[in-house]
Amino acid sequence: MPASAAESSRIAEPFDAVGVIRAKRDRGRIPDAEIDWVIDAYTRGVVADEQMAALAMAILLNGMEPDELARWTNAMIASGERLDLSAVRKPTTDKHSTGGVGDKITLPLAPLVAALGAAVPQLSGRGLGHTGGTLDKLESIPGWRASVSNADFVSQLNDVGAVVCAAGDGLAPADKKLYALRDVTGTVEAIPLIASSIMSKKIAEGSSALVLDVKVGTGAFMKNVVDARLLAQTMVALGNAAGTHTVALLTDMNTPLGRTAGNALEVAESVEVLAGGGPVDIIELTVALAVEMLAGVGITGVDPAVALADGRAMDVWRRMITAQGGDPDAALPVAAEIHVVNAPASGVLSRLDAYAVGVAAWRLGAGRARKEDPVSAGAGVVMLAKQGDRVIAGQPLLELRTDEPARFERALQALDGGYDITSEAAAGVQRSPLILERITG
Amino acid sequence: MPASAAESSRIAEPFDAVGVIRAKRDRGRIPDAEIDWVIDAYTRGVVADEQMAALAMAILLNGMEPDELARWTNAMIASGERLDLSAVRKPTTDKHSTGGVGDKITLPLAPLVAALGAAVPQLSGRGLGHTGGTLDKLESIPGWRASVSNADFVSQLNDVGAVVCAAGDGLAPADKKLYALRDVTGTVEAIPLIASSIMSKKIAEGSSALVLDVKVGTGAFMKNVVDARLLAQTMVALGNAAGTHTVALLTDMNTPLGRTAGNALEVAESVEVLAGGGPVDIIELTVALAVEMLAGVGITGVDPAVALADGRAMDVWRRMITAQGGDPDAALPVAAEIHVVNAPASGVLSRLDAYAVGVAAWRLGAGRARKEDPVSAGAGVVMLAKQGDRVIAGQPLLELRTDEPARFERALQALDGGYDITSEAAAGVQRSPLILERITG
Repeated sequence: MPASAAESSRIAEPFDAVGVIRAKRDRGRIPDAEIDWVIDAYTRGVVADEQMAALAMAILLNGMEPDELARWTNAMIASGERLDLSAVRKPTTDKHSTGGVGDKITLPLAPLVAALGAAVPQLSGRGLGHTGGTLDKLESIPGWRASVSNADFVSQLNDVGAVVCAAGDGLAPADKKLYALRDVTGTVEAIPLIASSIMSKKIAEGSSALVLDVKVGTGAFMKNVVDARLLAQTMVALGNAAGTHTVALLTDMNTPLGRTAGNALEVAESVEVLAGGGPVDIIELTVALAVEMLAGVGITGVDPAVALADGRAMDVWRRMITAQGGDPDAALPVAAEIHVVNAPASGVLSRLDAYAVGVAAWRLGAGRARKEDPVSAGAGVVMLAKQGDRVIAGQPLLELRTDEPARFERALQALDGGYDITSEAAAGVQRSPLILERITG
Repeated sequence: MPASAAESSRIAEPFDAVGVIRAKRDRGRIPDAEIDWVIDAYTRGVVADEQMAALAMAILLNGMEPDELARWTNAMIASGERLDLSAVRKPTTDKHSTGGVGDKITLPLAPLVAALGAAVPQLSGRGLGHTGGTLDKLESIPGWRASVSNADFVSQLNDVGAVVCAAGDGLAPADKKLYALRDVTGTVEAIPLIASSIMSKKIAEGSSALVLDVKVGTGAFMKNVVDARLLAQTMVALGNAAGTHTVALLTDMNTPLGRTAGNALEVAESVEVLAGGGPVDIIELTVALAVEMLAGVGITGVDPAVALADGRAMDVWRRMITAQGGDPDAALPVAAEIHVVNAPASGVLSRLDAYAVGVAAWRLGAGRARKEDPVSAGAGVVMLAKQGDRVIAGQPLLELRTDEPARFERALQALDGGYDITSEAAAGVQRSPLILERITG
């Protein structure tokens, strides 16, 4: 059987991909120079997709050492540009959520933190699958633009204090390429690769502090606390090693956040929160994350709950939306068709599953199956009862909203088995806590 | 974090590659129908190289169940044609070597077995890296053609009894594609994939019996007996499960076979053996493999050593070479330049390393680094002393032969540290046995 035929192709490159793959395959640490090379060569197209796929699978199954992963993450950052926030006159602090159902927290959070003295440079993404994307939500506001130039980005941070916009192609291009590859090769679920994917972009964004909202539960990417904790610890270590003050909260995602899942529906709910109302779980998590984001840049002794209630956060929201072309007073799109799901029995809504609601909203048109698909602004699910609420047989439980009534059937299939109503005596339901753990460096 | 976006691409195909990869990644057994599909879809180009690379790495690290591997091997066979040997009027028996240095055994073996009443349909390959290829060796005979039509193949088996020729592209095309992929993705060294690669082609060749010569040692693909035994057991099980009577011999490859490594050099040495002379290790292994090949089709009570010594095997050799256009009496090519390595001390040649000699021969021009490279017929190494021989300081030990004297330097580098001469008192050298184990179903 032959030795590798790669010898002759090595002439122009200092290493070869097969050697790097073998090191990880055989449970070794990839040497620093080879990490730098393989990420750079993959970005240049010298390391082929099939080689990176084999390496990703070896990393998934054999893991990475902490310092090895830090080097890998730095190499991903070095594949592109870093944002220069030196012209921003306030301390900069950022938040990242690993994604959940009904997770509109960025919408009230960014203006709230800005109202309390920090600058929030928030580069966000679009949704894929059953979890929504912050940009999709904001784009349901008439006129609002996700794209912001570098110059406008800095001036909006100085003038308004918060920007939520699309990331340019310049940040960590290696990650973009690697993420697309992992999606088709069964290698998404590798904690080192998830952590370096998120943190390479967040570190390249250049904020001084970062708070990670790591979701745990049926509607989250991490289904159990052990995996979520490991991911959070891994990301916190990477952030702090790179000089970004980083903490993480593990938060529950077995049931949706708030009462809505869908783009315009979530904007409306966020505005309620900014107006001093809204669901208690949204308020609780927004305030908790604001405290962390502010503490990360040394701002303490302020009460975010008060700034939500007294309209200061709403003022920043209106200026933030206006600065990006949006009309904060415009009517939001409404879906044409509504189907109501009534409670089949009386008792306690002892379980309302986040994944079931997320898939239903996705199928109603709120989400996309492919990157290039459009989303419907008005589609989604309104939860008229939340997990733990008492319900009476026949009362409206969920509203499904869509522009295409043919979508109701598959959305209802997604909800089949997605909730339980238990007799009050048997239930003894205790709401599980929303914030499960706090992870620091 | 999104769910896989593969949902929409599944419409035309019964399965998706990510699901197959995940099953193996998570240490499960791939269901039969998915094995059949993934091999077929990879051959059709529907499963991408990066997906098969991730699957190959998962198989390398997580293994395969015996029945899972048998299904995988069958699917590889089903990707192409099977040879139809029904018109051959003698029992058919075949041999495969996993490759070594100086391994010219096929050349005396095929005519020897034919001389004793079986038909030997031997589809062979070319060399890559430090191990030689049977076709490269035979092509040093003026006029000899590796390509034989299907009709000529059968008639030569009936008339002469032995054919050594190139495999067509029709046998196990999935293996051809997968082997090239494994070579660049660090997944060559997966025992299930090695076994299924070899056995899919050998089973598709359709002989009734098969003997596997599994090499162990520095010059072999398998460096230790444990791995070699596992590979042999795996292949023997696959062969017998497919109805091909299969046995394996584990044989030593820490030192080269015979006294030559190089194409025309090995042909000349094989002709010596067919003329009743030649090195004892070549004779021993040729006879042992002949006994197994014949026993596999029920021919016992014959003595291959006698048929080698009395010229019957030589008669078949001459007819076999002539049938494929070769002139068995023609002078073989000779390299233009010779460099002699003399013994640096007196004592016992206690070690002559197969890998060192193989790489030296390769660098002298006997082998190729890429599939499309030509090989030099005359280049190679002549071993004037064998491991275990007494030598005197200054006596010729090795002859390096090449057409391009610039190649001597790197060939000598390969031999540096490749042999030891020990004082007779200290040596106490015992030749290790050539045939280590016999593996049956």
